[in-house]
Amino acid sequence: MTQKIAVLPGDGIGPEIVAEALKVIDCLNQDFGLALETEAALIGGAAYDVHGTPFPEATLALARAADSVLLGAVGGPKWEPLNYALRPERGLLGLRAELELFANLRPALLYPQLEAASTLRPEVVSGLDIVIIRELTGGIYFGQPRGRRVNDKGEREGFNTLIYSESEIRRIAHIGFQTAQKRNKRLCSVDKANVLECTELWREIMIEVGQEYPDVALSHMYVDNAAMQLVRAPKQFDVMVTDNMFGDILSDCAAMLTGSIGMLPSASLDKNGKGMYEPIHGSAPDISGKGVANPIATVLSLAMMLRYSFDDAASADRIEQAVTAALDAGYRTADIHSEGTRKVGTAEMGDAIVAAL
Amino acid sequence: MTQKIAVLPGDGIGPEIVAEALKVIDCLNQDFGLALETEAALIGGAAYDVHGTPFPEATLALARAADSVLLGAVGGPKWEPLNYALRPERGLLGLRAELELFANLRPALLYPQLEAASTLRPEVVSGLDIVIIRELTGGIYFGQPRGRRVNDKGEREGFNTLIYSESEIRRIAHIGFQTAQKRNKRLCSVDKANVLECTELWREIMIEVGQEYPDVALSHMYVDNAAMQLVRAPKQFDVMVTDNMFGDILSDCAAMLTGSIGMLPSASLDKNGKGMYEPIHGSAPDISGKGVANPIATVLSLAMMLRYSFDDAASADRIEQAVTAALDAGYRTADIHSEGTRKVGTAEMGDAIVAAL
Ligand SMILES: CC(C)[C@H](C(=O)O)[C@@H](O)C(=O)O
Ligand SMILES: CC(C)[C@H](C(=O)O)[C@@H](O)C(=O)O
Repeated sequence: MTQKIAVLPGDGIGPEIVAEALKVIDCLNQDFGLALETEAALIGGAAYDVHGTPFPEATLALARAADSVLLGAVGGPKWEPLNYALRPERGLLGLRAELELFANLRPALLYPQLEAASTLRPEVVSGLDIVIIRELTGGIYFGQPRGRRVNDKGEREGFNTLIYSESEIRRIAHIGFQTAQKRNKRLCSVDKANVLECTELWREIMIEVGQEYPDVALSHMYVDNAAMQLVRAPKQFDVMVTDNMFGDILSDCAAMLTGSIGMLPSASLDKNGKGMYEPIHGSAPDISGKGVANPIATVLSLAMMLRYSFDDAASADRIEQAVTAALDAGYRTADIHSEGTRKVGTAEMGDAIVAAL
Repeated sequence: MTQKIAVLPGDGIGPEIVAEALKVIDCLNQDFGLALETEAALIGGAAYDVHGTPFPEATLALARAADSVLLGAVGGPKWEPLNYALRPERGLLGLRAELELFANLRPALLYPQLEAASTLRPEVVSGLDIVIIRELTGGIYFGQPRGRRVNDKGEREGFNTLIYSESEIRRIAHIGFQTAQKRNKRLCSVDKANVLECTELWREIMIEVGQEYPDVALSHMYVDNAAMQLVRAPKQFDVMVTDNMFGDILSDCAAMLTGSIGMLPSASLDKNGKGMYEPIHGSAPDISGKGVANPIATVLSLAMMLRYSFDDAASADRIEQAVTAALDAGYRTADIHSEGTRKVGTAEMGDAIVAAL
């Protein structure tokens, strides 16, 4: 059965790293009989440059029609002066909202080959394997009212609204508990219930939904403490679930603990399991066009796609093993390079993975 | 000249650690001719238990009348089931708001004696010395409207408002630039200007105010990246300035990098330099009443008070040197204990500091 993948390379290193994932797709089609069809479209700054909007209708239509979406990265200083509605980020946020990709799964996994790349002491992070589940289509990212105005003292004023309804919290809670069920059965919900009424409701609903999952141990942590605990003893966590803004911050922090931010994929899923897959890292404008970016996170995002959206665990395993094999063979891009390993560029790393496949 | 200090021990380990700071005050009065007068009052859960409110009128009156406030910590599981308005946190938040303590200074400093206590590799954190300046009386902590309601689908809904006016941003910007001027002249403003209009205004005002401080290098960072960079390479920062919520998260993360969270003081200042001083750590209900908590952060908060509010750098230096001397002599509370040092309780540590004074 043919599966259609909408490919959105985006900005900065996006096109370079996505190109390597496409090599892997070609190899899966040719050597393993898969039928993955790809079609590319512009998003973010690249789309703005051509179409005057970061989120063209055609891109949305392609993403809707596809079975799954592979995204590179969006954004860069070039587009920062633009008006809010035209910035690259609106393309990504628009896609999340339009496709209702409310569940963002972000694993933070330490690759044993890369222990030396973490800034944390080995004993604190070795074997680290946590998943952060971030609510992705609600909260302060999308809450209304929002904007700027002049207040009654004649001063400029900026405002945003953090808002969650019961059903929004409930559906992400289910994803949290179900993910924990497949792992070590511990779910830590992160909020700021001692200060924000919105997250007080968050906590209540987590507790309510938890009654349907008696096999999962639910705990709660304030977000400031969670940021501390991630640094102090990250291995205490199994699955964390939190809101859009806190998830943005904590998942980046957790990813960096592993020293492998160039290695970490993510999935953003709708209620039917259709998803958008992208590396956790950004568009890295400083190294874009140089052919040195690490394509592994993007390749592993493809593996996640096969696993979650196409129910093809065998191919996902195969890709993950090929990545491991390339690392074991000593291949390293600049971001994860250390003494005694072989420094390669983006394309060489992609080739090494394909060769291992 | 007599200086009046309102002493608010609060909950959990609060009373224990504040007791040690009081010993230091006695010593300064007796041996160094200072005239520090203290008067205690209840706040937080301790106040609720007695008066049915976490923030009694008398406490506010005392704090207003005093030249300065020394606070222990508030909160604990005992009071978590309480209605929002009665929780210990409301006492602390009420005090911040009523005294208009908009500028929260949180140093993250690695004590060379405690390098082993950090979970980060020594080369990443040794010599770490940054200050996070957190806006403390605005943003989502206090923004209106806020609360809970039932929406038109009959669902529960929780909401809070992130809001900043120009003048609120401007005054904290000045504190940021002035603090940077006294240090290494680098200020990093942290926002989420690519998503939140409110923090887009934040960034604009930072740039505007920056024109008055041409000697300070201003940079901007998104909050997710800032959380990553704190873990990746914290020494890149000198002074960071950010909003109330982001500051809550990032300052705890930064403090934990040092492994010395029991050592770090903080100051919350109004526009005249009157301040409330408190340890960065919380009320630690798990160890409260055991006499094992580390009183150093509270003692150093007193030093900060002498420096910032009473303009008595000599006494501040003296206290800081006494703390260093106690550490050099090998005294360690349980949280910072390591092999080859002498494990002591709260009171013994206080005595060691007083002896060194
Ligand atoms: C680019 C930006 C809008 C985005 C976000 O804040 O969600 C990014 O930081 C992420 O985490 O995917
Ligand atoms: C206790 C709580 C209300 C408080 C806050 O969130 O500001 C604390 O975490 C802090 O950082 O001082």
